[in-house]
Amino acid sequence: MSSSHDAGGELLDLSIAEAAQRLRQGAITAEALTAAALARARAVQPVLNAFIDVQGEAALAQARACDREAAAGRWRGPLHGIPLAHKDCFERAGQPMTVGSRVLAAQPPGERDATALARLKEAGAIDLGPLNLNEMVAGPTGQNPHFGDCCNAWDPTRISGGSSSGSGAAVAAGAVFGSLGSDTGGSIRLPASMNGLFGLKPTYGRVSRAGCFPRAFSLDCVGPLARSAEDCALLLQAVAGADPLDASSADAPVPDYLGRLGRAAEGSRIAVMATGRGYHPEVAQAFARFAEAAAQRYGRASEVAFEQLPACYAMADIFSKVEASTLHGAWMRAQPQDYSQAVYSRTEPGLHVPAVRYLEALNVRAGLLGAFLAGPMAEADVLLCPTVPVPVPTRAEADMEGAGKVFGVVATLTALTRPFNYLGLPVLSMPIGRDANGLPMGAQLIGRPFGEARLLAMAQALAADIGWAARPSGLPVNQTL
Amino acid sequence: MSSSHDAGGELLDLSIAEAAQRLRQGAITAEALTAAALARARAVQPVLNAFIDVQGEAALAQARACDREAAAGRWRGPLHGIPLAHKDCFERAGQPMTVGSRVLAAQPPGERDATALARLKEAGAIDLGPLNLNEMVAGPTGQNPHFGDCCNAWDPTRISGGSSSGSGAAVAAGAVFGSLGSDTGGSIRLPASMNGLFGLKPTYGRVSRAGCFPRAFSLDCVGPLARSAEDCALLLQAVAGADPLDASSADAPVPDYLGRLGRAAEGSRIAVMATGRGYHPEVAQAFARFAEAAAQRYGRASEVAFEQLPACYAMADIFSKVEASTLHGAWMRAQPQDYSQAVYSRTEPGLHVPAVRYLEALNVRAGLLGAFLAGPMAEADVLLCPTVPVPVPTRAEADMEGAGKVFGVVATLTALTRPFNYLGLPVLSMPIGRDANGLPMGAQLIGRPFGEARLLAMAQALAADIGWAARPSGLPVNQTL
Repeated sequence: MSSSHDAGGELLDLSIAEAAQRLRQGAITAEALTAAALARARAVQPVLNAFIDVQGEAALAQARACDREAAAGRWRGPLHGIPLAHKDCFERAGQPMTVGSRVLAAQPPGERDATALARLKEAGAIDLGPLNLNEMVAGPTGQNPHFGDCCNAWDPTRISGGSSSGSGAAVAAGAVFGSLGSDTGGSIRLPASMNGLFGLKPTYGRVSRAGCFPRAFSLDCVGPLARSAEDCALLLQAVAGADPLDASSADAPVPDYLGRLGRAAEGSRIAVMATGRGYHPEVAQAFARFAEAAAQRYGRASEVAFEQLPACYAMADIFSKVEASTLHGAWMRAQPQDYSQAVYSRTEPGLHVPAVRYLEALNVRAGLLGAFLAGPMAEADVLLCPTVPVPVPTRAEADMEGAGKVFGVVATLTALTRPFNYLGLPVLSMPIGRDANGLPMGAQLIGRPFGEARLLAMAQALAADIGWAARPSGLPVNQTL
Repeated sequence: MSSSHDAGGELLDLSIAEAAQRLRQGAITAEALTAAALARARAVQPVLNAFIDVQGEAALAQARACDREAAAGRWRGPLHGIPLAHKDCFERAGQPMTVGSRVLAAQPPGERDATALARLKEAGAIDLGPLNLNEMVAGPTGQNPHFGDCCNAWDPTRISGGSSSGSGAAVAAGAVFGSLGSDTGGSIRLPASMNGLFGLKPTYGRVSRAGCFPRAFSLDCVGPLARSAEDCALLLQAVAGADPLDASSADAPVPDYLGRLGRAAEGSRIAVMATGRGYHPEVAQAFARFAEAAAQRYGRASEVAFEQLPACYAMADIFSKVEASTLHGAWMRAQPQDYSQAVYSRTEPGLHVPAVRYLEALNVRAGLLGAFLAGPMAEADVLLCPTVPVPVPTRAEADMEGAGKVFGVVATLTALTRPFNYLGLPVLSMPIGRDANGLPMGAQLIGRPFGEARLLAMAQALAADIGWAARPSGLPVNQTL
């Protein structure tokens, strides 16, 4: 890996805390670390297509400013000088934002940084540039006919997962230490699972969405993808909390996620989602092993079911279709040719949903959340469930551009993720092993509202228990460097 | 008026503050005052049909409890021992609630008092019982095929206005000192205007709606009707403020409305809504005189227009139809025969409105409010506008039960009130004179968000300026006693 094409690359294997320590000690500079990240990003870009734009000059300028600040004794914290990059659905002041679409090409540049990006910048993080994503943050695959598909960092013939595809691929390839994605039906958790990462969809309202391009405002959440729960905790710490620019942001207190990482899950009670008939055997087997490991640490888990899970999926689909079609209605009429068949055919039907169906989906939400908390979660703090019910498909298998193909692909890949967007709960996807093709599989840790600290602590502990390396070695993509 | 059939009736002409003073001094008892109110209520009931149920025993028991408390030195404030009665759309613990409909006959009794009623009870007010209203709080006339029409207290051949019809008639007839109504498109302001009362639709969120039967939750407001702005201020003071049982209630601070009644409107800048072509000449003339009086006190008013007023009306109509049809969908399917033609034909079309239309109406709301505040209100603190564009119609003229008749009646009577429900602004309707038939006409004082204190103070001052008596004498209905 440390060839002449990847100078300084071993730095990229560090955790954020380790890199921060070296930066603070002066053992490395932010500029050197950023240069290494940029070299890695450029090296993997032809294979993974994780970036919309690698913005080297701007990133190096930020890094040098960080170094000057550090030299002057100002230290912003553990993200000071850490290279990150983010899904191209966050507004950047003075810059275009593609959202993976042609439709927005004529839009003026952003007026201000999205709140989440601004908070990371304030914390000292470096931004390497906008990452690839599914068109209009819609789609679970990473396929993108306008900017090219983003590929899986473990096997470029397979999908990266989406819609935060570039986040998954760039972090897994070591081009950046972490990334913000957005999640309407699984868009953080799917690329996390498929690329062997930790991805956190926080509680609805936990992280400001101001400046984040919406898919469905009743479901959308902003959250981090990273190579460990600890790295996720550092990113969440920087972005969580109320924001006057986002009326839906919650003013619930923000705990010390990193400080609680060692303790917050102690004594937790866990439950395990009854194995669905639909799980692929490899997924079922890996998840059973993972559940066994969890039971060893936290005590025997009860197996629970939630019969309303399909109803939650259906309600989330109503929200998505209606809210997205309201946003896209004028664009779909004016420039239908600029949409992929996959996105158009999933969005247009929302125009025909009666408003009463939409309000009914709103009306029963609190009741279904109550039923979930009083049912499967009655005696559990965390519910475990696979993230994706099948091994990572090939790009050909998951191709969504063909009459009606999109519906089956979406239904399969998001079956276990989307219901929890409807319920608004925090969910962390973590790696639990690799399938017969060597691709990662993941499990979801589903918590109570604003229970992120517990999920992060539990994921940190279970990753150690099952021996998942913070930085998985042997990424196929690196073998090609 | 003080015949043997109306013993103690002159007490009912007092303002709430005057009555409270006599109660506190021991010059009268709450029991005597309540007995007088009950006598008046029973006397006018055959003519006005303002009550669904006159609950004499319960009211007298409350009054005696108030007297015992007062004797023991406990004085709850200016509503201690004051007889009130409220629209039958507020839940009462252990009691049925009709909402003027047959549909709810099989519902169980209420589990708790609506928050607004509970707060009045806590303030010591007496409750004479549920008041008549339009079926399902929908309709501007007071017509009710199930419980009988409620008639105008000034002329029983004319409509009371609705949907808080009983509130308007009972207060104007002196049966109670004040009443809570609810207002989705004018339901407080119309009966206030048509019965010569002050009626306040507060800012959306100012008063809790917990336990108040909804018409459209994006528009509904709870507020008082009374014979003076001062009386309204006392009632609002008791019910305003955040409520954990109503997530839409605002936690904006509640000012001292009574204490600010003398000063809160000083130096106000006023604007006058350009006379619409649709105003009846009598209304136009009375409003012009009223605007002139306002100009004398507050300085020359600019004449303004708001071209988006019809758009606000249309958006409010989408909210009403969609939200009401979501609530009524199952009932309309199961027991259509229990609906009047008027309510059914106005509600059923909501089932067919696409969700995108509903979300668009939500999406443009803040922009239209901004345009209103930056346009007609740019240099004004209060905008003046008639409440109803026509003189009070006869019950025959405003009959809504006939093919398609409801639409024209509603469109005419609510043309000037409904747009401000969409904008969520506080609006106070006050009497400005009488038409050629001797019936009252009213004007709206439209304020900025949470500007109720200014509206109450301005109405108090202008009522004195134009010589409107707090208790209009010569009510035709009293001549029949």
